[in-house]
Amino acid sequence: LARVYNFGAGPSMLPEPVLERAREELLDWRGTGISMLETNHRGADFRELAQVSEAKLRRLLSIPEPYRVLFLHGPARIHYSAVPLNLLRGRTRADYADTGIWSDGAIKEGRRYCEVNVVASSRPEHYTRIPPFAQWRLDPQAAYLHITPNETIGGVEFHDWPDTGEVPLVGDFSSTILSRPVDVERFGLIYSGAQKNMGIAGLSVVIVREDLLGAADPRTPSMLDYAHQVAERSLAATAPTFAWYLADLMLDWVEAQGGVAAMAERNRRKAEKLYRFIDGSNYYANPVEPASRSWMNVPFTLAEPAEDERFLAEARAAGLAGLKGHRFVGGMRASLYNAMPEAGVDALVAFMGDFMERRP
Amino acid sequence: LARVYNFGAGPSMLPEPVLERAREELLDWRGTGISMLETNHRGADFRELAQVSEAKLRRLLSIPEPYRVLFLHGPARIHYSAVPLNLLRGRTRADYADTGIWSDGAIKEGRRYCEVNVVASSRPEHYTRIPPFAQWRLDPQAAYLHITPNETIGGVEFHDWPDTGEVPLVGDFSSTILSRPVDVERFGLIYSGAQKNMGIAGLSVVIVREDLLGAADPRTPSMLDYAHQVAERSLAATAPTFAWYLADLMLDWVEAQGGVAAMAERNRRKAEKLYRFIDGSNYYANPVEPASRSWMNVPFTLAEPAEDERFLAEARAAGLAGLKGHRFVGGMRASLYNAMPEAGVDALVAFMGDFMERRP
Repeated sequence: LARVYNFGAGPSMLPEPVLERAREELLDWRGTGISMLETNHRGADFRELAQVSEAKLRRLLSIPEPYRVLFLHGPARIHYSAVPLNLLRGRTRADYADTGIWSDGAIKEGRRYCEVNVVASSRPEHYTRIPPFAQWRLDPQAAYLHITPNETIGGVEFHDWPDTGEVPLVGDFSSTILSRPVDVERFGLIYSGAQKNMGIAGLSVVIVREDLLGAADPRTPSMLDYAHQVAERSLAATAPTFAWYLADLMLDWVEAQGGVAAMAERNRRKAEKLYRFIDGSNYYANPVEPASRSWMNVPFTLAEPAEDERFLAEARAAGLAGLKGHRFVGGMRASLYNAMPEAGVDALVAFMGDFMERRP
Repeated sequence: LARVYNFGAGPSMLPEPVLERAREELLDWRGTGISMLETNHRGADFRELAQVSEAKLRRLLSIPEPYRVLFLHGPARIHYSAVPLNLLRGRTRADYADTGIWSDGAIKEGRRYCEVNVVASSRPEHYTRIPPFAQWRLDPQAAYLHITPNETIGGVEFHDWPDTGEVPLVGDFSSTILSRPVDVERFGLIYSGAQKNMGIAGLSVVIVREDLLGAADPRTPSMLDYAHQVAERSLAATAPTFAWYLADLMLDWVEAQGGVAAMAERNRRKAEKLYRFIDGSNYYANPVEPASRSWMNVPFTLAEPAEDERFLAEARAAGLAGLKGHRFVGGMRASLYNAMPEAGVDALVAFMGDFMERRP
């Protein structure tokens, strides 16, 4: 089996033990003679998985008691709509920070439901930094402040949180959940897709402070009404059983790695190794302000863009896949989610050095 | 490996060749060295799968050209909201037929968005038949008429469609898609979850006549705006890649069985065998009017309800799983979706006969 290092931005690489376990159990889950794929979401086995996986996520992220946890269908992007529908609570204005393409998507969708106040934007700087919090124009009457803690396309990441006072902070953690500890109490609501650090496409997770619930817009689709899903324990309809199961396996794996603090230590090392190489290379470049650089997604360019295609082809032949940059920014992008081993980064750095040396 | 016959109502049994193929490809899809679970939804391989699977579904159901096909995240129930949001098109009233628990759910959700006219209801008869079309009180100004072609809980199924004139007919085909041919042109919109006849939980499919699109309520979540998803070829966000892939395998399998006409022939035989046995038994009973009986879900009761638990335990020991009836109606329920082989029905009938003989 020629497994490769997959640097794709998502759906992303999964740890081999998780894949192996999924394969082993695929035809017969827990000795039931029934495949995980066929398992009833209301049966005792699945209900136990649901309970246990929530407990694992609570343990890993130290989620305090007044927060509820939902495991819902995807995509994460549906929460661009569900957040205003649930959290406006009769207010007409919400704050949004604009730090990249994903923030911008959330803002555009938010405008369907309320008056959006963009508190800060790094668009004029081509999304190469998180604007300093001191410059943010926060609205004390905002229903919430929405941020995107990590932008997969620009490769910028928050390494601290703004102080929002009484205004609930909402974060789209799709590309950063479980990659490092997070002080959940700083947030009113956290949502995330699963397909980067928590499994496969088809599942989204919501962590929400209970007192914010119960005042959803009456036209909110029931499936997106968080209070309703809390009451139904995420089972208001057939759950995305297999994606949920995969998330459970991923949570086990993160625990076995030492938890999110250990993941953070490893992720910081992986990212620093790659940034250090890029910065010292005189051939590769990353445009992001160092203090805002992402641990998860490292975009970089070659000094000779004409070499991009050869770089990608030779990298792929060397077992390094998914390096093509997003069409909005071009160049390359290496995504270093939890499942990317340090050996993958070492292999990438070695290849990049070699490619640079060998250039005509 | 002790595979069992799983009569659960969904997520339901999958054909063993489909499971085997998924297992084979789980760690390495198409020789890429990348698992299907990790595959990028915008890569060439997945885009090809997306195109090919749509073509297969079009072929199997003879979907005419002016219909668009969407492969979206689940659950199917989210279309209870998406249908009015997309199809009211400025109108204020919609027709709904009430033929069971699922219809009732669609009606309750529909009332969030419009004035619902219940054209007919079999609730007074405990949902044991489809009310005769001649008695339906259709509203010619309705934005659409919503029906549930098969009710998994009551075990009633439409075997013909009402004539709605210019009013678009909308059907929740979650438990009946691909089980028999359907004249798509009779419908304005068909939606369905995948987890019964088309794969696993996490995927829903929409088949919609193009002229009905483009007038969604401005507050429709973008992910539920069918016109937007049509424009984006179902990829307005990360797709539920694995569930879509599984659906593709299921479509191959249905084609290999001879298509939906062959499935229908087999499904009719399976259902008739079980109903004939029940009706002739003097011990088991099915309450549904014969002309409205479902080919997919056969609820039945024992003459001695006190024997229910023993029946279930002995059936499970005999390799017959998932027979417990829905909590709303009690008793038993045998779901006979496409993947249930005739041998499964034979085994069930044999067990039921034996159980009846052996009773104290």
